[in-house]
Amino acid sequence: MSSSTLLNLLGYLNLILAGTMIFPMLVNWLYDEPMGKAFFLSTTITAAAGLLLILLFKRSPRDLTHRDGFAIVAFGWLSAAFFGALPYLFSGSLPSLTDAFFESVSGFTTTGASILTNVETLSKGLLFWRSFIQWLGGMGIIVLSVAILPFLGVGGMQLYKAEVPSPVPDKLKPRIRDTASILWKVYALISLAQTVLLMIGGMDLYDSLCHTFTTMPTGGFSTKNASVAHYNSVYFDCVFIFFMLLAGINFSLHYQMLKGRPLAFWKDSECRFFLGAVLLLVFVVSANIYGSVYETIGQSLRFGAFQVVSILTTTGYATADYEKWPAMAQLILLLCMFLGASAGSTGGGMKCLRAMLCFKYCYNELFYLIHPHAVSHIKIGGKVVPDDVMRSVLGFLALYLALFATCSVLLAGMGVDFITSFAAVAATIGNIGPGFGMVGPVDNYALIPYLGKWLLIWCMLLGRLEIFTIIILIVPEFYRK
Amino acid sequence: MSSSTLLNLLGYLNLILAGTMIFPMLVNWLYDEPMGKAFFLSTTITAAAGLLLILLFKRSPRDLTHRDGFAIVAFGWLSAAFFGALPYLFSGSLPSLTDAFFESVSGFTTTGASILTNVETLSKGLLFWRSFIQWLGGMGIIVLSVAILPFLGVGGMQLYKAEVPSPVPDKLKPRIRDTASILWKVYALISLAQTVLLMIGGMDLYDSLCHTFTTMPTGGFSTKNASVAHYNSVYFDCVFIFFMLLAGINFSLHYQMLKGRPLAFWKDSECRFFLGAVLLLVFVVSANIYGSVYETIGQSLRFGAFQVVSILTTTGYATADYEKWPAMAQLILLLCMFLGASAGSTGGGMKCLRAMLCFKYCYNELFYLIHPHAVSHIKIGGKVVPDDVMRSVLGFLALYLALFATCSVLLAGMGVDFITSFAAVAATIGNIGPGFGMVGPVDNYALIPYLGKWLLIWCMLLGRLEIFTIIILIVPEFYRK
Repeated sequence: MSSSTLLNLLGYLNLILAGTMIFPMLVNWLYDEPMGKAFFLSTTITAAAGLLLILLFKRSPRDLTHRDGFAIVAFGWLSAAFFGALPYLFSGSLPSLTDAFFESVSGFTTTGASILTNVETLSKGLLFWRSFIQWLGGMGIIVLSVAILPFLGVGGMQLYKAEVPSPVPDKLKPRIRDTASILWKVYALISLAQTVLLMIGGMDLYDSLCHTFTTMPTGGFSTKNASVAHYNSVYFDCVFIFFMLLAGINFSLHYQMLKGRPLAFWKDSECRFFLGAVLLLVFVVSANIYGSVYETIGQSLRFGAFQVVSILTTTGYATADYEKWPAMAQLILLLCMFLGASAGSTGGGMKCLRAMLCFKYCYNELFYLIHPHAVSHIKIGGKVVPDDVMRSVLGFLALYLALFATCSVLLAGMGVDFITSFAAVAATIGNIGPGFGMVGPVDNYALIPYLGKWLLIWCMLLGRLEIFTIIILIVPEFYRK
Repeated sequence: MSSSTLLNLLGYLNLILAGTMIFPMLVNWLYDEPMGKAFFLSTTITAAAGLLLILLFKRSPRDLTHRDGFAIVAFGWLSAAFFGALPYLFSGSLPSLTDAFFESVSGFTTTGASILTNVETLSKGLLFWRSFIQWLGGMGIIVLSVAILPFLGVGGMQLYKAEVPSPVPDKLKPRIRDTASILWKVYALISLAQTVLLMIGGMDLYDSLCHTFTTMPTGGFSTKNASVAHYNSVYFDCVFIFFMLLAGINFSLHYQMLKGRPLAFWKDSECRFFLGAVLLLVFVVSANIYGSVYETIGQSLRFGAFQVVSILTTTGYATADYEKWPAMAQLILLLCMFLGASAGSTGGGMKCLRAMLCFKYCYNELFYLIHPHAVSHIKIGGKVVPDDVMRSVLGFLALYLALFATCSVLLAGMGVDFITSFAAVAATIGNIGPGFGMVGPVDNYALIPYLGKWLLIWCMLLGRLEIFTIIILIVPEFYRK
């Protein structure tokens, strides 16, 4: 791995990040807030660090390798989260480095787990930055999942190698550039549509933008303490449900839809699985809360659908305190945290694609038990899934669950209670945000002990970067020539 | 599948079961208990049903197929559990068919989940039967896991094809007979040793026998309401820990030890993994409860070791209410329920062998990410693990977890609380017995709703018969010619 290339690229990333800090400064200025200093300092430091890296380290002329890819992704996210935390620190809103870094990682990984207990007291500029980080994180995720991971062969994402829209099919660098540019336009277009629809419903521009910035990346930060429940509006709930669903679908499919292929969603088996799962779970949860929590079918559907979609797409907005719901609804929401949204979307979790492949794998194994000498292939969308893809998918799922178990035990070892321990890990490794217990939908992560916050920071990064991208950096084999 | 062969074999199984019912009748008679009627009725019905089946259905002359194997195992267990429930029913101790069947299935699957709230009021004869069922179940498991499953190719057990002690290596029927006879002798010998050691400690013959009958199959039923805590003796705790560990080790290794190969345990990588896991987990749990629950290191080790070994071997005896322990110790015990003991032992859960293979698989996947064009094989004990074994193992783990999740949601849907739902399913599908919440170590399954008991009956059978053996019966493919 060429470390000078890596540092040079991180330098450019810093410059871009410094550039984006201008937007919250603008917000500060528009709202006459005396917060300029924090952003000015942050921008200066971020830009200076970027320039320094670019000047000190030159890019090596050779092509990027597999290993470079892993290092760039992992250190890119870490570096962005570190510099993105500066405004929290300098503004004094989160004076502890741990807390500021936690909030920033939670943003860039589009998790939405928060340390802040009262966001409504923050300046408009800082609150804008908090949401904007998630939107930037979402842009990163789109490129990562649709253009980079398929090439690195992580967790079965190589299935998408052929499906990505790109005029240059085989070279890594031009491919990333073109794919990114196409999908970012789609991302921006859908974001614009959501902002407009929120404003039509009566939300002001600022809140509309901030909420769009956290819906599209399935982030879930809100500018209100009560999250989306603050608005208590059927219209807004519907808009949010619709756009959360869009954010949970593979962005290549949105591109195809916009290109005039209206059946793209239907033709994609993962999308059918995802939307089918949403329908089924909304039905079951709504039936479970009807009568016991809500008196009308309409209300049960409204709140049931919102919470299921919010958790399954790993957004994490709340319109109800689901911890007061019956056990079945709660368990389903907990399982949704593991399932997650589609691969190639901005959602987290294990992803529907992998769950589907895993189901097919189990059925295939049953088939082999009945016909030990037969040959049977696992297919998706009519095509045979290669063995190495299946291997990656199962390896991913096993590692995901093993890390979930290990981190839960570690968190409990830090004095956190039984339910909070596994719920907090499930909600961070799946990039959802709110969990159960101490970190439920009406609580936050402020009371998690110091060391526990660092553990959860790693969980968020692990989950967001598809586990392997982070884990691989601690395997000695990675650094062997 | 030849159903007349199946019914004929079930007839013979009934005759054997009827024969074993003579022992509790003897106990009744020895203790002058007026309970003869219940056992007399049960024996008569069981024997009559057996004779009827043998007379009505003839064995087909053709050899047994794969499918016959699955059907015999599944229906064999179901039938034994059904007729084994009769004494509970006729004695009036468990007048409901559901409860009697639950207690009987819990026995034959060596789970140890109980409906009975006050076992000390039961007659000595019935209580003997309750323990004896577990011992019989254990005998079934040994044959199943070491002789039958490797041939059926279930869940990676085909790894053991070559390792089983048998003078006739390749034919299924003589092999099962000879392997069974060898391993049952080992099982009986170790059981004898435990009974003697318990009696040396001052336990009477009856209680020693009953506890041996539930230790060796990792069952966990006790003749005392307080389980092993009743005796509150360091000596007994040590004896139980030692024999639970033996029961959690592959019985082929015990055979090798008795044949004069003292390094057999050490040479087997699964056994090393299992004993290593025990040491590590005992250390962590004891450290966690030291100071917070127990004041001395000795006490922490004593109670920590007992509970870890009891749960990890899936026995389910209790000497402490671990629900009052810190969250970390509780979470570790919960994870132990999933891990389970060695393959080829009488223990349940996922089995150490599968966990080991899964770890190696994940590491292998990391290796492939770093060296995409290399070829790397997963090895165990120096030998390459064939792809079909790995496939079976991963299929098993995926199905195990998927069923765990589904059954937890279903149980919660029956009105059971959040923690109890997943703990009860984990404790029954893993064949442990006690779980958390309503089914904790000082509670039992009496308060689980009617439908929930039926669900858990299936969980016990699924877990005990390695999932596939039961699931395969509901796949239409199984019945296709």
